[in-house]
Amino acid sequence: MILPDFNNVLDAKLRIEPYIHHTPVLTSSALNEITGNELYFKCENFQRAGAFKFRGASNSVFALDETEAKRGVATHSSGNHAQALALAAKIRGIPAFVVMPENSKKVKIEAVRGYGSEIIFCKPTLSSREETLEKVVQETNAIFIHPYNNPQVIAGQGTAALELINQTPDLDYIIAPVGGGGLLSGTLLTVNSVSGNTKVIGAEPEGADDAKRSLQRGEIVPSVNPNTIADGLLTSLGSITFEIIKKFIYDIITVSDEAIIKAMRLIWERMKIVVEPSSAITLGLLLENKIELKNKKIGLILSGGNVDLDHLPWNE
Amino acid sequence: MILPDFNNVLDAKLRIEPYIHHTPVLTSSALNEITGNELYFKCENFQRAGAFKFRGASNSVFALDETEAKRGVATHSSGNHAQALALAAKIRGIPAFVVMPENSKKVKIEAVRGYGSEIIFCKPTLSSREETLEKVVQETNAIFIHPYNNPQVIAGQGTAALELINQTPDLDYIIAPVGGGGLLSGTLLTVNSVSGNTKVIGAEPEGADDAKRSLQRGEIVPSVNPNTIADGLLTSLGSITFEIIKKFIYDIITVSDEAIIKAMRLIWERMKIVVEPSSAITLGLLLENKIELKNKKIGLILSGGNVDLDHLPWNE
Repeated sequence: MILPDFNNVLDAKLRIEPYIHHTPVLTSSALNEITGNELYFKCENFQRAGAFKFRGASNSVFALDETEAKRGVATHSSGNHAQALALAAKIRGIPAFVVMPENSKKVKIEAVRGYGSEIIFCKPTLSSREETLEKVVQETNAIFIHPYNNPQVIAGQGTAALELINQTPDLDYIIAPVGGGGLLSGTLLTVNSVSGNTKVIGAEPEGADDAKRSLQRGEIVPSVNPNTIADGLLTSLGSITFEIIKKFIYDIITVSDEAIIKAMRLIWERMKIVVEPSSAITLGLLLENKIELKNKKIGLILSGGNVDLDHLPWNE
Repeated sequence: MILPDFNNVLDAKLRIEPYIHHTPVLTSSALNEITGNELYFKCENFQRAGAFKFRGASNSVFALDETEAKRGVATHSSGNHAQALALAAKIRGIPAFVVMPENSKKVKIEAVRGYGSEIIFCKPTLSSREETLEKVVQETNAIFIHPYNNPQVIAGQGTAALELINQTPDLDYIIAPVGGGGLLSGTLLTVNSVSGNTKVIGAEPEGADDAKRSLQRGEIVPSVNPNTIADGLLTSLGSITFEIIKKFIYDIITVSDEAIIKAMRLIWERMKIVVEPSSAITLGLLLENKIELKNKKIGLILSGGNVDLDHLPWNE
């Protein structure tokens, strides 16, 4: 297994520079007061296609050589990776094949289709997704881009932390959400190389706590029937992301759905920005005080802003 | 009647500089595509207390001399002006008395109280508000700061357009919402002096179209039973704002509630920011195509972001 390193992050930065948004870092005196810390929010909800996922997807797509690129790319995803890969493929002008569960939200299906990708529906189970993807790859010869367990994807995600550190040096902590671990492991590659004194904490939903358990056991323990409002964080670590996280992580801390929802509402109300639950978990972690942090300079990566405005958690 | 002019805007800029946020100008390729124009959104939803109102309120409060300031300030408002004045008074360390209708939303009452102001409740009618305010002013000797028909308030609001023009020169148009006309008339003072080729359009709700009718008649025609989702735009023009608008306006265009709600949702979904209906009306105007604008460089003033997340218009 080849682990990506910080050089891959630097390559990614140069490669995706023309395509990504340099997202702002926002602050909020109200949230500083509430948490007793100095918070710096890296707003990947403003990233293209609405989430940090576009960094990894565009890095993968633009890292392909001409011959590979012509074959197109494929993935299975019902979420932000699907949209991100579809957009990246559109920009490069190559085909993309996206396997989506037949019960995916209409708005997500339309977004992927809007970028010109071909959608192949499957049953809403992991095995059906994987089987359907395999068939698609065999038929089309497209290159599979895994949503997180892929070195180029991880390297791309690491560019968010690189920007954050340039925008806000000397952070004591960075908090990143952890689902499959792509964002967290990319963040770790960057922080370990350019900001050695910054501690990185992974924020994981209580109802999908495989990363915490995997680290405790020293081996991957996938979540069985994960359940959380943070629908972007349901997936379990992959072999590559697990290795990187194991090596560099300061801590993984779980967060209740209640704290995630409370944090999401606080961010909307006080910062006037739209973030999804998977983003709000970073502030949720601080609200629960499972770790004592006071007067610290903390970076929080707000991973995305793709929410269904017809179904907000406080109205359900 | 003394009309404020652009020198008052410049004075305001210097006076409020230490207290206000310099809000960003955001763009959205998706919304450019939908409208066929280049849009520049001045994000006063990120202003302190959540709306541009803090500019005018802080200018009024900090323009008082020491003797006046000691008397404190008073106003009647159930909306953003109340919060803005309360915060400005708190920063200067003087008392504020806010008359609010007894049916005001709890979250608004708490915000005003949170800034340390004294709240005096009244019946939810204009006459009760005015009578109660008069009594409060007599008893406390506090200085009444009108929400919009006040030269210092208007001059303060004009600083938003001044920032916008510095951030984004050569705009063909600026669209600002119009309720009582404070923001619009401040914008006009600025644009007329520093960006003479930019045309200013007022966006007014169909259900509260007193500005349009007043301009047609050449005299103030207040709204009777105004009704619109844009609750910040229910008020009618005042004597000062009317004079300035009459003098400099390019056009007032009315917008349906349907277009306001559609625009609000588009801004939340595509730009990932929280704006209130009174802000979204600026984009709503472009969606309705009552004026033919294509390939123009257009500034839109997003006036505020104070919404009740329990009651969003698309869920009602």
